[in-house]
Amino acid sequence: MTAEARRNNLHPRILLAPCGFKENLSVAELIESMARGVKAAAPDAEILRAPMADGGEGFAQTLAQLTGGCLHPVQVTGPVGQPLQAHLGLLGGAHVGTVAIEIAAAAGLRHVPVGQRDPLRTTSYGVGELVREALDLGAQRLLIGCGDSGVNDGGAGLAQALGIRLSDRRGRAIGRGCGALDGLAHIDLSGRDPRLGDVSIDVAVNWDNVLLGRRGVSRVFGPQKGASPKDLAALETGLRTLAAVIRRDLAIDVRTMQGGGASGGLGAGLHAFLGARLCPRFAILSRFLDFDALLERADLVLTAEGRIDGLTSFGKLPAEVARRAKQAGIPVVAIVGSVGHGANTMHEIGIDAYFSIVDGPGTMADAMSRAPELVASATEQVVRLALLDCQSTRKRKRE
Amino acid sequence: MTAEARRNNLHPRILLAPCGFKENLSVAELIESMARGVKAAAPDAEILRAPMADGGEGFAQTLAQLTGGCLHPVQVTGPVGQPLQAHLGLLGGAHVGTVAIEIAAAAGLRHVPVGQRDPLRTTSYGVGELVREALDLGAQRLLIGCGDSGVNDGGAGLAQALGIRLSDRRGRAIGRGCGALDGLAHIDLSGRDPRLGDVSIDVAVNWDNVLLGRRGVSRVFGPQKGASPKDLAALETGLRTLAAVIRRDLAIDVRTMQGGGASGGLGAGLHAFLGARLCPRFAILSRFLDFDALLERADLVLTAEGRIDGLTSFGKLPAEVARRAKQAGIPVVAIVGSVGHGANTMHEIGIDAYFSIVDGPGTMADAMSRAPELVASATEQVVRLALLDCQSTRKRKRE
Repeated sequence: MTAEARRNNLHPRILLAPCGFKENLSVAELIESMARGVKAAAPDAEILRAPMADGGEGFAQTLAQLTGGCLHPVQVTGPVGQPLQAHLGLLGGAHVGTVAIEIAAAAGLRHVPVGQRDPLRTTSYGVGELVREALDLGAQRLLIGCGDSGVNDGGAGLAQALGIRLSDRRGRAIGRGCGALDGLAHIDLSGRDPRLGDVSIDVAVNWDNVLLGRRGVSRVFGPQKGASPKDLAALETGLRTLAAVIRRDLAIDVRTMQGGGASGGLGAGLHAFLGARLCPRFAILSRFLDFDALLERADLVLTAEGRIDGLTSFGKLPAEVARRAKQAGIPVVAIVGSVGHGANTMHEIGIDAYFSIVDGPGTMADAMSRAPELVASATEQVVRLALLDCQSTRKRKRE
Repeated sequence: MTAEARRNNLHPRILLAPCGFKENLSVAELIESMARGVKAAAPDAEILRAPMADGGEGFAQTLAQLTGGCLHPVQVTGPVGQPLQAHLGLLGGAHVGTVAIEIAAAAGLRHVPVGQRDPLRTTSYGVGELVREALDLGAQRLLIGCGDSGVNDGGAGLAQALGIRLSDRRGRAIGRGCGALDGLAHIDLSGRDPRLGDVSIDVAVNWDNVLLGRRGVSRVFGPQKGASPKDLAALETGLRTLAAVIRRDLAIDVRTMQGGGASGGLGAGLHAFLGARLCPRFAILSRFLDFDALLERADLVLTAEGRIDGLTSFGKLPAEVARRAKQAGIPVVAIVGSVGHGANTMHEIGIDAYFSIVDGPGTMADAMSRAPELVASATEQVVRLALLDCQSTRKRKRE
């Protein structure tokens, strides 16, 4: 770097806007590691922070932290019926009275033991229990984050936990899990927890997830939740039956609504059973974080995601970060765990470059255990390169 | 990137100066992959090429290519006594009459089967045979490249192949390999191939490799050639005996000469037995490549190496590339197979940033098989980031 460039480089402003690395680093941990890397490369850098809480793991904690709130532990029924320690996020500051609920805490894939990964059987019952606990605490507003779920029951379990009666054609209550939806014939809201009429519920969803069809939640996410190819048709049938009965008994059409497929169809269920409003995740986050104002101050944006591939452009937060940064004319670099097929389509939506944190051949377990150090190191190299003044070098040389 | 920045970015000039990835990609293959990556990031880029042939694998081929010469196959005795197909590089153009000899072709570690990696037994005999073949072809000048050897015999095998008599105290010829040097008592040059008096021999060595002692070749490189901790002392003793007899019978002190430890002490042997001149590798390369003139035209230098770590700064070519580029004020980025301990010391010697080609957890075999694609992709991302105009963004925003 030339002396002139170095002077210009004083106090570069770098906006850290990572998503978490699932089952590895939380958003807060990622920001801390990235900040170490920035400081190593540019000790004078000003670091701006925009934790990109998607609706999944870490949603409640991030919102609690952003508002000065706290976590509240709750014992619930896990996705395979096991007792599970989950939590609510009680927001603070101007948001007192709002409770953040993270679906992954009660029905997350990580709470489905590997040998029991069968989305025909897993239930969102525990999410209903979280809602009930929030009501017990006097919540006025619920913010529910979808993502990282291990269920595919369209919110049937949630409904069952909140007094809504799902019954078969003989009037008998159906069981739990998507497999039981096959026999669903009636939905009766009369026993629904009456306090639900007094709270507003917003749900942070991946806007591009729909309930049914070729791009529906069963087909797209079923396999990673443990469904065999044969199971996929049964999952689709279960949700299709649920949607048909919702349409007839509740007069709501959730079949193709935006975000209805979020978290195994919990988006659709929250809307139909609880009157919740589905919102793009970025819109929820924007209530807590003035991202555009942060962008306005930044010289460079670093985002992060566990894996970047052709799917990342479909409604994931790094894509939204890139889209906004591009509008503002700010370069964006993604720091990722791994690069998958089709990642280069990310250039089209505004991610200028992407780099894996992995620094050589090795196992996933090794990369995960070294992730804090690898993230810091990759961030350092990216910032070093980004602040190199190739342009000045060239202008100087050609003058 | 702003429109203005994009205009300024027309025709960036990028100098590709990689070393090879050992046992994976040759320098020529690396340059081809890197060039594809540059073109993907900046179709208008002007690509400058500086193949960094270190003395090891690819030395003869690279020099032959740079001069418009060709390879000449030769059957030799391999490092464990096996018949081995090796080659000479017959240089072309202004260098006709010069023959390039690559020690790795006749005594390389890759020619020592894994089950037979014992540097007490491996021999440099085949290197002597390559020299003899070059003399048979009428060579006037030899350029010998050291590196990637699997031997530790101080050039004893080379001497034996060229008529030099190495004998024990009873006058009997000693056997091959470093283990036999223990019994060495006399060196007799009288039977040496007489044509050696008429050729000039230059040897490209890692200037920092010495024959004996704590930083001598046995201790530093013995383990990677298969020596057990116990063997290291025996290797040191063998080379120490060789150096002592050379000193007494030939009046040459090779014990601590610069480059004497190159290729298991072949540097010392070539100097003592053949009167060869040892040269830093970069100096040899500079006869074929005007690196400083290329640097003068470049806006950015990309080097590459199989592995970057704290040792890279000790006489390896990327360190020399970085040193010269830094003097010229040109940014340097290293694209590497893997990043090892102490790599961040590379920043001090002028490598501005480094990135592994590996794009996620996976095996060495997988990374090697995908190396051409991974190198192209990593190069693309690096060039995209390097050409981002963070400086202009900042100046524009703060005006």
